[in-house]
Amino acid sequence: MLINELAQLCGAIPQGGDAERPIDSAADIMSAQARQVTVLSDGKYKKYLKDCRASACFVAEALLDGDIPAGLTLLVCEDPEMSFLGAVKALHPEPALERLISPQAAIADSAVLSADIHIGPFASVGQHSSIGDGSTVDAGARIGNHVVIGKNCRIHPNAVIYDHSQIGNNVIIHSGAIIGADGFGYKYRDNQHVKVPHVGNVVIEDNVEIGANTCIDRGALGSTRIGWGSKIDNLVQLGHNNSVGKNVIICGQCGISGSCEIGDGAILAGSVGVADHVKIGTRAVVMARSGVSQDVDAGAQVWGSPAKDRKTAWRELAALAKLPELMQKIKQFESRLTKLED
Amino acid sequence: MLINELAQLCGAIPQGGDAERPIDSAADIMSAQARQVTVLSDGKYKKYLKDCRASACFVAEALLDGDIPAGLTLLVCEDPEMSFLGAVKALHPEPALERLISPQAAIADSAVLSADIHIGPFASVGQHSSIGDGSTVDAGARIGNHVVIGKNCRIHPNAVIYDHSQIGNNVIIHSGAIIGADGFGYKYRDNQHVKVPHVGNVVIEDNVEIGANTCIDRGALGSTRIGWGSKIDNLVQLGHNNSVGKNVIICGQCGISGSCEIGDGAILAGSVGVADHVKIGTRAVVMARSGVSQDVDAGAQVWGSPAKDRKTAWRELAALAKLPELMQKIKQFESRLTKLED
Amino acid sequence: MLINELAQLCGAIPQGGDAERPIDSAADIMSAQARQVTVLSDGKYKKYLKDCRASACFVAEALLDGDIPAGLTLLVCEDPEMSFLGAVKALHPEPALERLISPQAAIADSAVLSADIHIGPFASVGQHSSIGDGSTVDAGARIGNHVVIGKNCRIHPNAVIYDHSQIGNNVIIHSGAIIGADGFGYKYRDNQHVKVPHVGNVVIEDNVEIGANTCIDRGALGSTRIGWGSKIDNLVQLGHNNSVGKNVIICGQCGISGSCEIGDGAILAGSVGVADHVKIGTRAVVMARSGVSQDVDAGAQVWGSPAKDRKTAWRELAALAKLPELMQKIKQFESRLTKLED
Repeated sequence: MLINELAQLCGAIPQGGDAERPIDSAADIMSAQARQVTVLSDGKYKKYLKDCRASACFVAEALLDGDIPAGLTLLVCEDPEMSFLGAVKALHPEPALERLISPQAAIADSAVLSADIHIGPFASVGQHSSIGDGSTVDAGARIGNHVVIGKNCRIHPNAVIYDHSQIGNNVIIHSGAIIGADGFGYKYRDNQHVKVPHVGNVVIEDNVEIGANTCIDRGALGSTRIGWGSKIDNLVQLGHNNSVGKNVIICGQCGISGSCEIGDGAILAGSVGVADHVKIGTRAVVMARSGVSQDVDAGAQVWGSPAKDRKTAWRELAALAKLPELMQKIKQFESRLTKLED
Repeated sequence: MLINELAQLCGAIPQGGDAERPIDSAADIMSAQARQVTVLSDGKYKKYLKDCRASACFVAEALLDGDIPAGLTLLVCEDPEMSFLGAVKALHPEPALERLISPQAAIADSAVLSADIHIGPFASVGQHSSIGDGSTVDAGARIGNHVVIGKNCRIHPNAVIYDHSQIGNNVIIHSGAIIGADGFGYKYRDNQHVKVPHVGNVVIEDNVEIGANTCIDRGALGSTRIGWGSKIDNLVQLGHNNSVGKNVIICGQCGISGSCEIGDGAILAGSVGVADHVKIGTRAVVMARSGVSQDVDAGAQVWGSPAKDRKTAWRELAALAKLPELMQKIKQFESRLTKLED
Repeated sequence: MLINELAQLCGAIPQGGDAERPIDSAADIMSAQARQVTVLSDGKYKKYLKDCRASACFVAEALLDGDIPAGLTLLVCEDPEMSFLGAVKALHPEPALERLISPQAAIADSAVLSADIHIGPFASVGQHSSIGDGSTVDAGARIGNHVVIGKNCRIHPNAVIYDHSQIGNNVIIHSGAIIGADGFGYKYRDNQHVKVPHVGNVVIEDNVEIGANTCIDRGALGSTRIGWGSKIDNLVQLGHNNSVGKNVIICGQCGISGSCEIGDGAILAGSVGVADHVKIGTRAVVMARSGVSQDVDAGAQVWGSPAKDRKTAWRELAALAKLPELMQKIKQFESRLTKLED
């Protein structure tokens, strides 16, 4: 694709250099070479622009000053990140999977499959399940019984969807994710843990993405819910009966016990833990590695284990760093006091 | 099922309402509707009873006072949790899996399978392995060579059991769990990490449940053992040569390094880490997100990282919260002292 | 195998006992019995030697004094750990997998497979992928399109290698590991998280081992790299664009966000977290459960969350333990001060 074409496709104005040159691929500003397009969207990377070897670079007008290599065509646009993202997609199109059901797949008689789907080898679809138009179930994935999968979903290899799960449209589930296993609940009677039957399910709304090897347990009686547009990273544990709002971000290795409510737009950074029955408010931010044992207000930013207001937690941390020295000082006080008292 | 029938089945006495009404399903006290049964087992949910729309509710005599909706049939019993659990099972029976070996499974010649089992499509069973009566190996699960699986086990889709694992009766292993992978051990020689061969195995006793995507490594020479009735949640890492006692509870995302001994009835809450060669005593409780680096006494309750006695740790935490303020006070002391000294 | 033969094979000199006795297997010094060989490599286990029931024991000259059971043949050698490791391999040889492609595997037309390989049932290999001599792809593993796998690799059951991954020689990938899933990146526009396309890949160099259920995400544009000889334990999350050096050790449940650089020979103990764009220097050691938010110097040893110099962190910890008592003391100071002031 020529620079000109790419610019037009991505809503940018070429400026400088030769916009008739071809672009083959995309790269970041530090490693891009000739025939590549890159992006400058953050002022802190501006220092790399003067030595940039890319043929073209998306940039906002605000970042346009400074040294620009002679051969570089700037692609001036309003939102360089989004224009570049469009360019990446255009230059590296996702390979289309053939629309077919592998003869090596196992489809139950009562499953209802749309015509326009891809089912890979060794994938299996259970009784009474349905899969919508444009969806893909990759090699080795298991779709249980009575599962509903909407349109344009992609279930990657070896993911497992247990019985009765409901999955909306445009949902991506990465390899090894386990949707709908039993929650972890027992009653201790007569010297043994008696399993609480889990007869609920998992409901995943549209536009959700679920990372590799993430586990989302079914509800005990009702549903575990993941709201519209929420994104969940790899190796996350989401226990039974949690309710995750819309556009929530849950980063890698978070663990959410059970019966929690995570408000719309909340962000849980990496390895956050949340205790049972906790409510996390709308747009709250829980910083990395925090352990949340109490409700978090909407918009709050919390940190630590147990998590508290970020600034309070940091003040404590700063104080702790001074504590060894403070203890020395207090010893001196003691002698000064004693001296005065004598 | 009629309320009367359910009551009889679950050892409860109907009281009030019309016990000839039908019940279709079970729900929690806040969301239950007509034709549903619910339970009140914890005084803190008692406030929901007066607006409860369920047709029937299991309850202990001790919780019987207060406003009760006119149409609600109380099901008075000794242990409402267990009675309700029985009702859930009766109303939502687990679908029976056909007793067959899928023609799309791969069973080694020398494998010994009982007649009364279910093996799903794309499951494979290796050489010299045996599977007992009533057990299920679901779609895509891999049973290695020389594996013994007892009676009435359920191996969920895409779980993997490595060679030589021994699994008792009534064991549930959820999807994606990996039983018997090599432990993590190397010797550093000549500028490289030389792999320690792992020739031990994993032994899982009766009535154990293992969560989705949990990993239990084989012993280096001997066995990694999980004792009778222990329950392990999702995404847990259990390293080589650990010995887990009976009726132990290990919650999600715990990590137990290696060669540890976890005593009978111990509880490890979510995301607990345990260092190598640590002993955790009988019925000890390790609270969530603790890091255990030293032995824990039987019956002890520990918290923190490194974990210590729960009360001691909390006192430290409370003190830390006051530290910033304390530092202010100490500054004032300093001036007061200096003033006195002058 | 006779003790004499084992000694010769493993570079040891038999001393005492009857070296013509047979050895069947290996065990640790505390549990070894007759016909077993064991090892004493660490002085702290020396106390077990006098009651050792093994037929033979590898030991270094330095540990040779003290009571030695009459029937025990010592196998004196320079490096008992390595000699024993050789003995374990000789006594417990890994079973050879038949060199064949299962008729129940799915191999794309354009895949290029060496003759001398094992592909298990329900494994699948995508278009344009190649697998080198001596490699094994076990049951149910999925190799995507355009994947390169070198020689003598072992891909365990149900592991998944996404498209375009490049894997060197002698690489072991355990069950359930997911190599090359999309990184976790979104741009928030118009009230939704827009997915950043991930068109990079994962490159794994020779002699790497990857644990069960570990996830290594592909680069957004470039590659996520794992250097020569590095060893990664189970349930580790390695995000997009990380660069892991040579001979790095990453223990179970670590989480490394993205775009980090981990220097050669660095060690990350269990459950360590590393924030985006952090550099960890050569041979640095990050102790268990630390959260690293800033660069770590080469050779440094850090601990805590946020991680800091190990000794500094421990001093703070020790001070914190004394804080509750200190607060009592400060109260007393206050009264003493007030008294003096009056």
